[in-house]
Amino acid sequence: MTTSTSGSSTSGPAPSGPFVSRKLAELSGPAAAAALTADSIIVIPTGAIEHHGAHLPLSTDALLAETYATAAVERGAAEGLDIWILPTLTYTKSDEHHWAPGTVWLSWETLMATLVDIGRSIANTPARKLVFMNGHGGNGAPLQVANRELRRRFGLSTFTMSAGIQRAGSGGADGADELGLGIHAGHGETSLVLHVRPDLVDMSKAERNIPEHIAEMEFIGFNNKPVSFGWMSNDFGPSGVIGDPTGATSEAGAALFEESVTRSLAALHEIDRFSHAVPPRD
Amino acid sequence: MTTSTSGSSTSGPAPSGPFVSRKLAELSGPAAAAALTADSIIVIPTGAIEHHGAHLPLSTDALLAETYATAAVERGAAEGLDIWILPTLTYTKSDEHHWAPGTVWLSWETLMATLVDIGRSIANTPARKLVFMNGHGGNGAPLQVANRELRRRFGLSTFTMSAGIQRAGSGGADGADELGLGIHAGHGETSLVLHVRPDLVDMSKAERNIPEHIAEMEFIGFNNKPVSFGWMSNDFGPSGVIGDPTGATSEAGAALFEESVTRSLAALHEIDRFSHAVPPRD
Amino acid sequence: MTTSTSGSSTSGPAPSGPFVSRKLAELSGPAAAAALTADSIIVIPTGAIEHHGAHLPLSTDALLAETYATAAVERGAAEGLDIWILPTLTYTKSDEHHWAPGTVWLSWETLMATLVDIGRSIANTPARKLVFMNGHGGNGAPLQVANRELRRRFGLSTFTMSAGIQRAGSGGADGADELGLGIHAGHGETSLVLHVRPDLVDMSKAERNIPEHIAEMEFIGFNNKPVSFGWMSNDFGPSGVIGDPTGATSEAGAALFEESVTRSLAALHEIDRFSHAVPPRD
Amino acid sequence: MTTSTSGSSTSGPAPSGPFVSRKLAELSGPAAAAALTADSIIVIPTGAIEHHGAHLPLSTDALLAETYATAAVERGAAEGLDIWILPTLTYTKSDEHHWAPGTVWLSWETLMATLVDIGRSIANTPARKLVFMNGHGGNGAPLQVANRELRRRFGLSTFTMSAGIQRAGSGGADGADELGLGIHAGHGETSLVLHVRPDLVDMSKAERNIPEHIAEMEFIGFNNKPVSFGWMSNDFGPSGVIGDPTGATSEAGAALFEESVTRSLAALHEIDRFSHAVPPRD
Amino acid sequence: MTTSTSGSSTSGPAPSGPFVSRKLAELSGPAAAAALTADSIIVIPTGAIEHHGAHLPLSTDALLAETYATAAVERGAAEGLDIWILPTLTYTKSDEHHWAPGTVWLSWETLMATLVDIGRSIANTPARKLVFMNGHGGNGAPLQVANRELRRRFGLSTFTMSAGIQRAGSGGADGADELGLGIHAGHGETSLVLHVRPDLVDMSKAERNIPEHIAEMEFIGFNNKPVSFGWMSNDFGPSGVIGDPTGATSEAGAALFEESVTRSLAALHEIDRFSHAVPPRD
Amino acid sequence: MTTSTSGSSTSGPAPSGPFVSRKLAELSGPAAAAALTADSIIVIPTGAIEHHGAHLPLSTDALLAETYATAAVERGAAEGLDIWILPTLTYTKSDEHHWAPGTVWLSWETLMATLVDIGRSIANTPARKLVFMNGHGGNGAPLQVANRELRRRFGLSTFTMSAGIQRAGSGGADGADELGLGIHAGHGETSLVLHVRPDLVDMSKAERNIPEHIAEMEFIGFNNKPVSFGWMSNDFGPSGVIGDPTGATSEAGAALFEESVTRSLAALHEIDRFSHAVPPRD
Repeated sequence: MTTSTSGSSTSGPAPSGPFVSRKLAELSGPAAAAALTADSIIVIPTGAIEHHGAHLPLSTDALLAETYATAAVERGAAEGLDIWILPTLTYTKSDEHHWAPGTVWLSWETLMATLVDIGRSIANTPARKLVFMNGHGGNGAPLQVANRELRRRFGLSTFTMSAGIQRAGSGGADGADELGLGIHAGHGETSLVLHVRPDLVDMSKAERNIPEHIAEMEFIGFNNKPVSFGWMSNDFGPSGVIGDPTGATSEAGAALFEESVTRSLAALHEIDRFSHAVPPRD
Repeated sequence: MTTSTSGSSTSGPAPSGPFVSRKLAELSGPAAAAALTADSIIVIPTGAIEHHGAHLPLSTDALLAETYATAAVERGAAEGLDIWILPTLTYTKSDEHHWAPGTVWLSWETLMATLVDIGRSIANTPARKLVFMNGHGGNGAPLQVANRELRRRFGLSTFTMSAGIQRAGSGGADGADELGLGIHAGHGETSLVLHVRPDLVDMSKAERNIPEHIAEMEFIGFNNKPVSFGWMSNDFGPSGVIGDPTGATSEAGAALFEESVTRSLAALHEIDRFSHAVPPRD
Repeated sequence: MTTSTSGSSTSGPAPSGPFVSRKLAELSGPAAAAALTADSIIVIPTGAIEHHGAHLPLSTDALLAETYATAAVERGAAEGLDIWILPTLTYTKSDEHHWAPGTVWLSWETLMATLVDIGRSIANTPARKLVFMNGHGGNGAPLQVANRELRRRFGLSTFTMSAGIQRAGSGGADGADELGLGIHAGHGETSLVLHVRPDLVDMSKAERNIPEHIAEMEFIGFNNKPVSFGWMSNDFGPSGVIGDPTGATSEAGAALFEESVTRSLAALHEIDRFSHAVPPRD
Repeated sequence: MTTSTSGSSTSGPAPSGPFVSRKLAELSGPAAAAALTADSIIVIPTGAIEHHGAHLPLSTDALLAETYATAAVERGAAEGLDIWILPTLTYTKSDEHHWAPGTVWLSWETLMATLVDIGRSIANTPARKLVFMNGHGGNGAPLQVANRELRRRFGLSTFTMSAGIQRAGSGGADGADELGLGIHAGHGETSLVLHVRPDLVDMSKAERNIPEHIAEMEFIGFNNKPVSFGWMSNDFGPSGVIGDPTGATSEAGAALFEESVTRSLAALHEIDRFSHAVPPRD
Repeated sequence: MTTSTSGSSTSGPAPSGPFVSRKLAELSGPAAAAALTADSIIVIPTGAIEHHGAHLPLSTDALLAETYATAAVERGAAEGLDIWILPTLTYTKSDEHHWAPGTVWLSWETLMATLVDIGRSIANTPARKLVFMNGHGGNGAPLQVANRELRRRFGLSTFTMSAGIQRAGSGGADGADELGLGIHAGHGETSLVLHVRPDLVDMSKAERNIPEHIAEMEFIGFNNKPVSFGWMSNDFGPSGVIGDPTGATSEAGAALFEESVTRSLAALHEIDRFSHAVPPRD
Repeated sequence: MTTSTSGSSTSGPAPSGPFVSRKLAELSGPAAAAALTADSIIVIPTGAIEHHGAHLPLSTDALLAETYATAAVERGAAEGLDIWILPTLTYTKSDEHHWAPGTVWLSWETLMATLVDIGRSIANTPARKLVFMNGHGGNGAPLQVANRELRRRFGLSTFTMSAGIQRAGSGGADGADELGLGIHAGHGETSLVLHVRPDLVDMSKAERNIPEHIAEMEFIGFNNKPVSFGWMSNDFGPSGVIGDPTGATSEAGAALFEESVTRSLAALHEIDRFSHAVPPRD
C-alpha cells in the first residue's frame, strides 16, 4: 500500500524520528515491528561471490544486486512506498563456477534452507510482502521454488525479480558482438561495474568468449529458448566469461543502470498494488 | 549422434532382434548396456498427479508428458536418432495444488533427491545425454536445478524441455479469451486431453477462471514477465483452473499435438548434435 | 467397507456416470473427493526398474506389480469393494542392483521421503486406507517403516503386501531346482513375465544361478530364516540372477498369476473389513 | 574364521595378556586394531527404551538384547570364535510407542544415520563382519535396510538377527492363551525379564491384552502373515501390551533363554563360516 | 524441587515400593509417568567410544560419564533430589579421532538429530528439566546447540555440564608436566580410570604427548584461550594422546573423583532450585 | 607466513597493481588465485540480524563483526600479514531471539550447511587458513563444530575467535552494574555501536535488564561457569536485553574497540605463525 507521497514521515505507518532508515536491520527490533504493516514490502538483494573472468571482481553479482536494490528502495521510499531493504544474501548458488578458485558457493539444499529460514523469520513480522532482487542468474530457479514454498508454508506474498529489470529487446545490456549470449561478465555486467565501482575492473584482462555454437541453435539456449541445459561455465572454455566485455563502458553502464532502476521501481509499485486475492467483480 | 537412418537396426549401436524396443526399461540390463553409447539420448517424461479443475483428470500432466514423449521418441527412432525413453516420473512437485484432494505431491527436497538418484543411475550406463520432457510447469525450476546438479556431479549432458514445445506466438495453445493466462487446465491442455483421452474429460464441468488482474500487470506474471511470484492455484478462486477450457476441442488438441511433437522432435535432433565441448575453430 | 455388491454404481459412495474409473488419477480432483470415503482403499503398486538378468526386462517388478494390482483392484471393484488404484511408483530402492547398468534406483532416504509425501497427500483426501502392493523385495523393509510412519503422522491405516500373494508352501513360484532360492529373475518371476508380456523375455539368455551355499545354511537366508544379511546381487556371481529361470513357462506363469490374484483379492477384502479400533465385545 | 578352540589365547589373532576382554570398547584403540582381523565378528546389541506395559521396565529390550548378546559372545569366544561385542545401541526406533511417557525413541532417519555412522566406523577397523543382535521388533526393518547400505557403501558383511533366536514352532515364547500374538510384553518377554532381572518386574500389574481380531485374520498379521500393517501399540487398547504376561514364570524364561542363546550361538558359528564369495565348485 | 529429605520415599512424588530405582528406564512406563513431575531432573550421561591412546580403553569417556553421573544421581536422590538417570548415550561425536581404528563416531548431524529426538521424548513425560552430564569434550558444542534447540522446540529447561566438574584452578586433574594441556588420555583421565576400572588400564603403554607449541601460545588454545581451532587428535603426533598419563595414580583418581562428584552434586542442587522465570522482586 | 613488512606490495605473494584490495571478493577469481598461498589467512566475519533491545539496531552483531574484522585485516595487512577478508556472513543462528520480530535467523542445520559449503569453496583456493571472526555469541558452538568439520573434510586450518577479543578481567566491556552479565545489548555492545555508528543508537530506549538470579549462581551461567543452559532471550523478561546499556558511552566504545582490535591483531599474528604440524625438536 503506497503511503501518501507527501508527509509519509508524519502520518503514515512508516517510522519517524532520528533513527529512521529504510535499511530495516538498522532499526531496532521494536522499531521494525512498529514500522512494518501487512502492506510493507521487504526487499532482499541476492548476489553471489563467484568467478567473473579475469576482469571483474568475484563480488560482481552481490555488488550489483545491492546497488540496484538500494537505489530502487530509496527512490521507492521517496515516492511513498512502504518499502524496506534487508542485508544482501551474499553467498548463494554458484555451482556452475565451482571449479574456479574464489567462487564461494552454496549447494541448492543450503540455499533453499536459507531462504526457508529467512521466510520463517519475515513471517514473524507484520510484513507480508517479500521481494528477492536477484543479481545472479543461477539463483533464479531456486528463488522460484522458494517463492512458492514461502507462500505455502508462511502465507507470505513472495516475488522474485532481476535486481535490474532490463527493457525487453532494448539491447541495452547486449554488446554488439555478443549474439545475445552476454550472460556472464559480458558487455552489460562489465559496463555496470565500470559505472558503480570502476576501481574493481581491469579492462586489460577483458576477453571475448562466446559459445557461438549455442547462438546457432534453434531450441537450446540459456534463457530465451525452449530447451534449457545443464552447464558449467568452463564448458565454454577456460575463461569462465560468457559474453564480450571488451567494448564495455562506464557510460553504457550508467544508462543501463538508470533504465533498469526505473523499471525495477515501476515493478515495485506494481507489487505494492498487487493482491493475491481475486479483485471484486461487478 | 544420429545413427544411419537406413539400416540402423543392423549396423548401428542400437539393439536388434525380437526384443528391441525404445522403451529402455523393456530391455534387459545387459541389452540396455549393449544398446547405449555415449551418444545415446535418454528421455524421462515428468508429469504430475494434481488437481486440474473439475473437467480434467488428476493425471493430465503425466498423461500428456508420456504421450508427447513417446511420440517424439518413436518418431525420432524412426528417423535414426539413438534415443530411448524411461518410465514417466509420475509424482512430482505440485505444491501449488496441495490444497486440492487428489493431488499427490512431492516436496522440492524429495523431487530433487529423486532426480539426483536418477542421474546417478543413468551415469552408470554408457549414455551421457539425459532429457527431461516435462508436462508440469511447477517442475520447471527444480528441473533446471537438476540439470546443473547432474552435470556437475555425474558429468551428464542434461536438458529440460516442455514435453510439447509450442511455437512461440502461434497462439495454438491459447484460447481466444484467455488473455494469455491459460496455464493450467485451460484451452490448450483441455484440447490436448480431448485429443488423446476424450473419455477422461467432462466438458460439462469446464469453467473459465482467469485472474484478469494478472493480465493487466506490466511486470508480474506467470512466465513471460520479469517478476515471478509465489502462488497457490486457489489464490485465484476455488476452481483451481487458470484458463478458459470452455472452447476446447479435440481438433484444436490434435493440431497442437502435431505441431508440438514436430517441434520437440526437431529439438531432440538438435540435442543429438549438441556437444558441450567448444567446437573446433578454423 | 464393502459397498453393496448389487447396485454399487447407483447407490453407494462410488462415483457414477461416464467418467467412472477405478484408476483414481483418471478422475478429476472434485470427482475423486466425492468418490472417496473413510472406508475407501487406495492401492499403490510399487515396482522397480532394475537388472533382472539377461533374459528379463528392467521393468519386470514395475510391470508385475502394476499388472497384479490392476487385476486385483478391477476384480475387487466388481465384487463391490470401494477400492482405487493410483499410478505405480516405478523407481524405488534397488540398491542391491546398483552395479548393473540400467538399474535406476532411489536411496532409502529418497524412497522414504517419497512415501511420506504420498502419505501426506492421501491424508488430504477422505480415504483412510492405503495399501502398497509391492513387486520388489528390496522395498519390503522401507514399506514397513512407511506403514508405521504414515499411521503415526497422518492417521492412515496402512498396509503392505506382495503384489501377488503366493500360497505358502504351494511351491507354485519355485522351480524344481531352485532350492527355495528363486528370489530374483527365477522360475516364478520369469514365468509370470512369460504370461503377461512374453515379448519381453529372451529365454535363450536364461541361466540358472543359485547360491547353493545359502541353501545349505540353517540360519542365514533371504527371507525365511532367522538371520538376514546384507547382499548385493552380484555377490552371487555376475549374472545378477538368483534362481533358475530355465524351466519357466507361460503356463506356470498363468497359474501363478491366477492363484496370486485370487489370494491378493481375498487379502483386500480382509483389509476392507479391518479396523484399527478394537472390536466391541459381548 | 574360527580360531583354534584350544590355545586361542596364545596362537590366534585374538589378543592376549592382562587386558583381554571380548568387550571391544574395553580394549585400547591399538589393542583393538591388533586384535581384529578380516574374519572377526563384531556384535552390536540393539535394544530400545520403550513402554512395555505396567509390569515390565522401559529398558526391557535393551536389557534382553545386551544379556543375550553378551552370553552368546562369551560362549562363542570360549568356543574359539573371533567375536567381539560393542556397547548396546540403547535408544532406537520405538515410534509405535511414542504416545507412552517414558519411551525414548529415534525417528527412522536418526536411527539410519546412526547405523550408517557406526558402519563407517567399523569399516575403519580390520574387521569385516558386523552383526546386529536385535531386541526390539521395530528395529527389524531399519536394520535390514542398514544391512544393505553398509555392505554397499563400506563393503562390510552385515547380518541382523534377533538377539535371542527362538526355535520355530517351539512355542517356548508363546503363552498358551496368546493366540500367537504375544509380541510385546507378553509371556515370553516377561518370563525372560523374570529370569534375568526379576526385581524389575511387577507381576501384580501384568494384564492380558490380545487383539483377538488380528488372530482371526487370514492375511493381516504382525510378522507371520503376508500383509503387514502400520500400527501404534495403543491401537489395541491403552495398556500398550500385546500378549498375555499373566502366566509368565522365571522358569519359562530360563528355558527360553537357554534355548535361544544356544541357537544364536549356532547362528554366529554359521556367520563365522559365511563368505559372501561364491564357494568354489568341483 | 527438592523433596523432603526425610521420608521422600513415603510422601513425595517419587515412587515407592519394591521396584523403585533412580534408573528411570528400570521403571515401567506408567511408573515413570507417575514418578515424574515438572520439577524432576532427568540426567543423561553422554560418553564416547573413541581412541584414548594405547593405555586407556576405547570406552573411557562413556565409562567415566556413566560412573560420575550414577554417583551424583544416587547421592542426589539420597539427599532428596527428585532426580533420575537415563541410559548413557554411548556413541557420540568423536570426529577428531575418526582416523583411529576403534573409534565409533557420529557425525554432528546424527548426534544433533539424536539429541532432538531424545528431547522430544522427554517432553512427553511430566519432567521439564534435562541435564546432559558429558564425558567427552567433543560433545560440548553440540550439546550447547541442543540445550537451546530443546528449549525452543519443546520448552524444556536444559543443562549441560561436565560429568565431573573440577574445581577451577585446583590442578587436581592436571599432571605436573602437562602445561595445562592434559585434555585427552592424560593425567586426570588416566587416574580416574585407574580408580574406577584399573583392569582396563595398561600403564606400560602410557606415553607423554604434549603439543608444547600450543602451551606457548597466548591466544590459541583448547578451551581456556580466546581462539579455538579445528584439530584432529593425530595433528599432535600418532599417539592420539594429549597429555601426560605417565604419572597417573589410582589415588589421584580417587581424589579427583570425589571432588568432582561433590561439585557436580552441588551443581545439581542448583539446577533443582533453578527457574527460567525471573524471580519475584520486592 | 608473514610477508616482509617492508615492501610486501612489491616482492611478496600478495598481489600488486591498481586493483589490489584485501577484500578478497573485490579481486577477480584469477587474481585471487594468484594472490593466495598456503600461508594466506582468510577471514570471514560472522554477525547476526537479531533483536538487541529497543535501543540498538538489529544489525548490531553484523556491524560490529564486520567493523572489527575489517580493522584487524587492514592493520594486519599493513603489518605484513598475508591476510584477506571475505564478505560478512550476515544471517546466522539467532534462535534465542526467534520470538522477536526483526530477528532473521538460520537453524543450526542451515548454518552448519552454510559453513561446510564455504569451507569446501575455500579449500578450492590455495589458502589453507580460515578464521571466523564472530560477532554473535550464539554462533560460538556451531563455529566450533565447523572448525573441526572443515579440518576433517577439507584439510583446512580453521580458527574461531570473537571479532573483538577483550582482555580477560579488564572489565572494559562490562558495565559497573552488570554483575558480569552484560552479554547482549549491554554496556559494552552499546558503547561499541555508539562508537562506530552512533546514529543507530537510541539511548532514550536503553533499559537495564539483568537476570540477577543468574549472577547469584555458583555453577549455572552464560559462559564462565561450568553449567551451561538453554535459554531464550525472553526468558529474562520482555526486553530481550541482558545487560545494562544505560551507562554506555562512545568513549567507552572507542577504548574497547581499540583494545580489542589490538588483541585480535595479535591473535592473527599468532595464527599466521601457527602450524598444525608438531614443531621440530632439538
